[in-house]
Formats: sequence, structure tokens, C-alpha cells
Amino acid sequence: MAGKIQKKREDLRRRLIDLAEKRVADGGIQQIRARELAKEAECAVGAIYNVFGDLNELVMAVNGRTFKRLGTYVLEAVNANPDTSPTAVLTTMAHAYLGFAQSNTPAWRTLFDLEMSTEQEVPEWYLFELQQLLALIAKPVAQNFPDLPPGDVELMTRGLFSSIHGIVVLGLEKRISAVPTDELERMISLIINSLSENS
Amino acid sequence: MAGKIQKKREDLRRRLIDLAEKRVADGGIQQIRARELAKEAECAVGAIYNVFGDLNELVMAVNGRTFKRLGTYVLEAVNANPDTSPTAVLTTMAHAYLGFAQSNTPAWRTLFDLEMSTEQEVPEWYLFELQQLLALIAKPVAQNFPDLPPGDVELMTRGLFSSIHGIVVLGLEKRISAVPTDELERMISLIINSLSENS
Repeated sequence: MAGKIQKKREDLRRRLIDLAEKRVADGGIQQIRARELAKEAECAVGAIYNVFGDLNELVMAVNGRTFKRLGTYVLEAVNANPDTSPTAVLTTMAHAYLGFAQSNTPAWRTLFDLEMSTEQEVPEWYLFELQQLLALIAKPVAQNFPDLPPGDVELMTRGLFSSIHGIVVLGLEKRISAVPTDELERMISLIINSLSENS
Repeated sequence: MAGKIQKKREDLRRRLIDLAEKRVADGGIQQIRARELAKEAECAVGAIYNVFGDLNELVMAVNGRTFKRLGTYVLEAVNANPDTSPTAVLTTMAHAYLGFAQSNTPAWRTLFDLEMSTEQEVPEWYLFELQQLLALIAKPVAQNFPDLPPGDVELMTRGLFSSIHGIVVLGLEKRISAVPTDELERMISLIINSLSENS
């Protein structure tokens, strides 16, 4: 009996994440509205809050899936590139990040919109997904900067991710950086190609 | 007579920008509400739209002032630093950008929030202010990369600004980059120190 209830909860939870994922893909976090989700999931509004503490928790679950898709997208790009030099790998990753953001803009924005709008604690699994992504970058960074102490590799890795993120954010938000989108890849290459150990 | 009306318009315009600037400094773009501004400016709500096409135009005017303050802030930091090597200048500028964002967070965010939320044309004077800022960065970039063609200096300049912007954005939004604020300066130094002409 308890198992049956448990199963129903899990089914509803998955159904809600599926529906929320579609909405986030279409229009971002603004599309997450309890009443509409309940209607689509054919459950009471209150039932949503039986499986999720609040709507942020639901968006978190969607972001977890987006992180996974992003990781796969980046890895496939790296594996498709025969050039395995650290600089080539970092450039491929950065271009893939731009490509993912361009072809999944609302879902990608939601990764950051949520962070911007919530003060709640971030769940362990979320930080784990983030770590997985950063680990992908840390490897070529460590190869590119063999003399950097581990702590600095970590800092350089996050700094590099943040840098590429900034280029993509301002690049897709055309007016501020005013760089034509087809120039963004070249901008990214310019930056990464000029990164080297000379300090 | 016409001159008198003109003067009244300009007084109201300046008064509204002053009030909007205070509100943006306190709580960002969300604090810009026509009814409250009209009350503070002791004018009718309609009068606001006689001097500004819409509230975005008013926020634009505030952002223009913020750009000027940011430019002054960065220049003063550069002038205060005896080390005039391109790398030192770029690092000082980047640290100053972080410092300005930290001590003027709502006003700084509004520079980008508006861009994110409007599709209207950007006025010439706004792009001019932006150019002024980028010109500050272009000089040390050109010194640091003497062999870069001018077009690439421009691209590298915007790329570098976007990179530092990304580090500051994710850094102040603690959860994603998860870098303690006092590590941000070191992260910025790491990135800029490892930028050099080796392509």
C-alpha cells in the first residue's frame, strides 16, 4: 500500500518534471506556473507541493536535466574533434557551449535565471552536476598550465568557464557586446588561443 | 514663452532622472514605477511620458550616468597604479570593474537588466558611452598584442570585457561559480596574466 502511494508520487514527480522541461524549453522560467502545470498533469495544484517543496525545486530538477544535456553536447563535440591538444579541446568545449546556448536559449538561460532569483539552499545533486561540468574543463586546463598548483587550476577552470559564459551571455544579448553572432566563435578562439602559461 | 515651457520640460526631465537614479541605486530596475516617480516628482503620471517615450528611456538615461561613473571609477584606479605595463593596466581595470559591481550592484545590474528586457533601438549617445568604455580597454590590449590586426584588437577587447563581466556576474551570484569573493580578484589576475600573444 505504502509502495503504491510511493509509486504514484514518483510518477507524478516525473510527469511534472517532463511538463516543466517542455515549458522551460519553450519560454524559460516564466512559463512555470502551478495552475497550468496542475492542469496539464491532471492533478490538484496542492499535489504539486506534495512532491516539490516549491516551484524552484521543480525548476532545479529541470536544470539538472539541462546540465546533463549540456555535458553530453560538449563531450560529443570534443570526441568529434581529432585535435586533442589542450587548446583545441578548450576551444571546442567553448564553441559547443555557445552552440548549446544558441540552440537551447530558454533552457540555458533558466540555469542562471533560477540562481538569480532564489536564495534557497542548492541541493547536493545539483552541485554534483555542476562539478561534473567543471571537471571536463579542468583536465585540459591542467594540461595547458602544467605548473599551476591544483588550487589555481580549479580557479582558472571556473574563471575560464565564467569568461566563456560572459562572452556567450553578452553575445546572445546582441546590443551590449554588439558582436555579430558569427564573430563570437572567432572571439572565443582569440581568447583561448592567447591563454598560456607565461606568469 | 516657448523657452519657458522648454525649461520646465528640462527641469522635470532632470528631476525624474535624479529620482530614478536614486531608486535604481537602491533596488535596481524593479524600483522604477511611474506612479511612485510621479508622486516623488510632484507631477502627473502622464507628464513622465511627455519627457520620456517610456520608462525604458528613463532607465537608459540612468544607465548613461552609471556608465560615466563606471568609466571614472576604472580610470581613477588605473591612474592610482604606478605599474603601467599593459597586463597591470588590464588587471587594474578588471579589478576596478569587480569593485564597482560590488559597491554599486543594483545600478550595475540595471545596465544589463534593461538590455535583457527591451527590444527598442538603443540611442546613439548610449552606444557612444559604451564605446568610451571599450576604448579604455582597447589601448592596453593593443599594447599587449602588438601583432593583432585592428579588427582582432576590437574583438579581443570586447571578448576580454565580456570575460571579466562573466567572472563578476557568476562571482557575485555566488552559487554557480562558488568562488569566495576574495578569490575573484585572484581568478581575474590568473586569467589576465596568462593572456599573451602566442597564436
